[in-house]
Amino acid sequence: MAFQIVPVQAEHKPAIRTLLMQTDFFRADEIEVAMELIDDTLARQGHLTPEDYHIFVATQACEVLGYVCFGKTPLTDSTYDLYWIAVAPHMQSRGIGTRLFEFSCQEIRKQGGTLLVIETSSQPKYEPTCKFYEKVGCTLEARIKNFYRLGDDKLIYTKPL
Amino acid sequence: MAFQIVPVQAEHKPAIRTLLMQTDFFRADEIEVAMELIDDTLARQGHLTPEDYHIFVATQACEVLGYVCFGKTPLTDSTYDLYWIAVAPHMQSRGIGTRLFEFSCQEIRKQGGTLLVIETSSQPKYEPTCKFYEKVGCTLEARIKNFYRLGDDKLIYTKPL
Repeated sequence: MAFQIVPVQAEHKPAIRTLLMQTDFFRADEIEVAMELIDDTLARQGHLTPEDYHIFVATQACEVLGYVCFGKTPLTDSTYDLYWIAVAPHMQSRGIGTRLFEFSCQEIRKQGGTLLVIETSSQPKYEPTCKFYEKVGCTLEARIKNFYRLGDDKLIYTKPL
Repeated sequence: MAFQIVPVQAEHKPAIRTLLMQTDFFRADEIEVAMELIDDTLARQGHLTPEDYHIFVATQACEVLGYVCFGKTPLTDSTYDLYWIAVAPHMQSRGIGTRLFEFSCQEIRKQGGTLLVIETSSQPKYEPTCKFYEKVGCTLEARIKNFYRLGDDKLIYTKPL
C-alpha cells in the first residue's frame, strides 16, 4: 500500500498518542514518555545529533499509520537503540511496520550505525512483537530474567547493520 | 579498615573527579556524566525518589576513598541499576568496594528493590571489575556482542536482592 515516511511534526502528536493507546501495548506513563520525546525532537529539529531521538511517521493523506523512534546509544561507537515502533491496530499486517523498520535501518546506516539493539518484554502479549523482530532479521541475543517484574523478562534483540 | 559511608556532598566533588581519573577506567565524557549526576543528586537531596541517582561516598577523615551511584530502573517494578562504583587506586584491595556494594544492596532492599543490574564492558582492562562483581555474588546473565564497539561487548551482571 502507498504511504510516506516523514519526520515527525507537531500536528502528528494527537494521532500518535491515540495510536499508542489503541495498540494496548504501552502503559500511560510510557505513552507520556513517548510524547515528551516527540517534544524534544521537535524542539531540536534541524539540529539533531545522532544521540537525539529520531522520530519518523508513516502517513497516508493526513492519517498517521505508524511511527518509529530511534537514536544512537550513548557511550557506544556506532550502536543504535530502536526505542519505539508502532502501527495503528486497524492498519497492521500490511507491511507498514516492516517499511518503518527498514527505513530506520537505512537512516541509521547513513549515520554510520553498525548495530541495532531493541529491548522488549517476555510477556505473552508481546509475542507478535517478537515474531516481528525475528521476521525483519533480528536475533534474540540476551534475556534478563525478572527485569520488568517477577516473571517478566527483558528480551534484547540485535541486528548488525 | 575504618571508614564511613555517607550521602554525597558538594565538597566531595573534586575528590570524586580525581578518583575517577586515577582509576583509568573512565573516559573524559563518562566522568563529565558522573559529575552531572552528582549535581542532579545534590540539587534534589532531601527530595530524592527511587528513580533518582543515589550517590554515597566512603570517607575517612576528610579523604574520599570510593563512591557508588545507583537508582531504580525506569519502567520496572523493583529493578535497580548500579551505575557507578569506584575506589581510589591506592585504597583498593581493602574491602572498600565490597562494603560500598553491600551498603548499596541494603539501601536498595530498603527501597523495595528486588533485582540489581550492572552493565560493564568485556575489554580485558575490566577483568578485575568482572571478578569483583562475581566475588560479591553477581552472575553474568547476558552479553551483547560488539555493543560498545567492534570486539567490545556489553556484559550484564545481575544479583537478586
